[in-house]
Amino acid sequence: MSLSQPSTQSRVKVKSFLTGLQDDICKGLENIDGEGTFQEESWERPEGGGGRSRVMREGRIFEQGGVNFSEVHGEELPPSILNQRPEAKGHKWFATGTSMVLHPRNPYIPTVHLNYRYFEAGPVWWFGGGADLTPYYPYLKDTRHFHKIHQEACDSINPKLHKVFKPWCDEYFFLKHRNESRGVGGIFFDYQDGSGKLYKGQNPNGLSSIASKELGEYKLSWEDLFSLAKACGNAFLPSYIPIIEKRHNQTFSDRERNFQLYRRGRYVEFNLVWDRGTIFGLQTNGRTESILMSLPPLARWEYGFKAPPESRESLLTDVFTKPQEWFTDESLEEKCRPHHAVD
Amino acid sequence: MSLSQPSTQSRVKVKSFLTGLQDDICKGLENIDGEGTFQEESWERPEGGGGRSRVMREGRIFEQGGVNFSEVHGEELPPSILNQRPEAKGHKWFATGTSMVLHPRNPYIPTVHLNYRYFEAGPVWWFGGGADLTPYYPYLKDTRHFHKIHQEACDSINPKLHKVFKPWCDEYFFLKHRNESRGVGGIFFDYQDGSGKLYKGQNPNGLSSIASKELGEYKLSWEDLFSLAKACGNAFLPSYIPIIEKRHNQTFSDRERNFQLYRRGRYVEFNLVWDRGTIFGLQTNGRTESILMSLPPLARWEYGFKAPPESRESLLTDVFTKPQEWFTDESLEEKCRPHHAVD
Repeated sequence: MSLSQPSTQSRVKVKSFLTGLQDDICKGLENIDGEGTFQEESWERPEGGGGRSRVMREGRIFEQGGVNFSEVHGEELPPSILNQRPEAKGHKWFATGTSMVLHPRNPYIPTVHLNYRYFEAGPVWWFGGGADLTPYYPYLKDTRHFHKIHQEACDSINPKLHKVFKPWCDEYFFLKHRNESRGVGGIFFDYQDGSGKLYKGQNPNGLSSIASKELGEYKLSWEDLFSLAKACGNAFLPSYIPIIEKRHNQTFSDRERNFQLYRRGRYVEFNLVWDRGTIFGLQTNGRTESILMSLPPLARWEYGFKAPPESRESLLTDVFTKPQEWFTDESLEEKCRPHHAVD
Repeated sequence: MSLSQPSTQSRVKVKSFLTGLQDDICKGLENIDGEGTFQEESWERPEGGGGRSRVMREGRIFEQGGVNFSEVHGEELPPSILNQRPEAKGHKWFATGTSMVLHPRNPYIPTVHLNYRYFEAGPVWWFGGGADLTPYYPYLKDTRHFHKIHQEACDSINPKLHKVFKPWCDEYFFLKHRNESRGVGGIFFDYQDGSGKLYKGQNPNGLSSIASKELGEYKLSWEDLFSLAKACGNAFLPSYIPIIEKRHNQTFSDRERNFQLYRRGRYVEFNLVWDRGTIFGLQTNGRTESILMSLPPLARWEYGFKAPPESRESLLTDVFTKPQEWFTDESLEEKCRPHHAVD
């Protein structure tokens, strides 16, 4: 594999973007919340590096929100990553990222997650990241909006990318033990070094892998991929703020609140059982409080719960926690209309 | 390794004990609850076998409680177990167990877990199990009582066993990412086939391993180990019911409730991140609802929470979530007395 070179000052450039992204997102979220503010805590990692964690609690819109920046380095990457990137063996590594999870109070506003990260280790470097939306009482137009803004961000670099990154997201944020997607997805990519193959996930027969193979050799420069991370990161606020604006005045009762808390249990299950980043962090002496900032402030489990057939709640499990072609599948509107869940 | 033979009719005998244990425990718990009753659901496993799940919700004492019996079989054990028991390779397997987790409403009553199980696969068989207590507002005497009853059960088979099974429990129910024990422990054993070595865990330098080595070769028959499982299983009600009786009338406020919900988050973390049985079940197509019956009905996370120094809550984290010599360490009383947490 011949890699293109990273830009000179690559680490400085990416770090500057990622801290700026954290700043912009926090500002945008404080602005729309109107009451809550982020509390910042800086921390150092004994083995090298550190971070800047910001948490909002009990805001008007956000019951809890965390936006974390970190920049860490070490002597050698752990085996789980070296398996994917054997060329990094024996080299010092550097990793930086900004991640975010928001748990809104109103069940009509979806939970949302974002993460963009960059690694260097000896001769190799790569970008990874994405954003995905987890509604409780979903609306088709909200879902399409979130996807559209992220598709446009991908398209601004190259119009072929979204065909790989959208199904990759569906594949990654999947709870096998529930046979459910975490939510309506978004975009996800990892190990992007521009060397020719876009899909680097675990499922050679999945839609993302197939789309990637159809593209054939596909070289991208470091600058292309940095631009991709910037475009996608900057897409977050315009992808999400309009959903808040549209939904935050919708009233809800105990029924919606209880269902939201129940579904938040699934968020906990995904993060603790399946999310590679979370498990890796917890098992390798990461900063626990920052890693688990993604967990909801309150969650509920109920043995054997099933949403009543034909209910608004079963629309979530029947339609919005399965991978879908959100833009082109015309049956989606029909399924949503009886529940007033189109717009 | 030369194994003693299992009893004739071994599966029938163990199954009869384990279903009886489920019955006895459910009866005892319904009796003390006075209002809640267990709802039973029988299920079949497509690959072979099935189970009988029983759940109590919103009782007087128990906010939620689950007691599950299962008896499953298959063509070959999964790699994670074959690593421990290579002799089982290529053989059909049989496994049966009764497991229980209780989440009481009152924060002065501890959460408690029990599991006893039995495996056969070709030439090998083994018993496993244990019980452990997770208080929120602990009392030294309650803790000692729970340990004493379980020690007596072990001693009734052989007075050396408890020295191995008590530290093994501390070692297993440990949250590495929090550097905390799940609670005050109890007893735990696994892969018990009587062939000479008691400790079969992961830490050759731990207290359990050391105690096991000091014992030297230690043969036990199938009947001995079956008697052990019976004695320990039957010890559960007398180990726990007196704690309920003593605590259930203690009043509590939002402060205690909030701390209980926060600490229940740790229970979720242990079960989903570290518990081998849970992870194994979820990743291998087990019955999700029965496996996750252990999760609390409601749990809370709070970024950066620390119990105030010298508080009743910090007594939990300073003393009762670290392995202790509950019977012999005289400093424990001094630590508990200022908090009225001795008796």
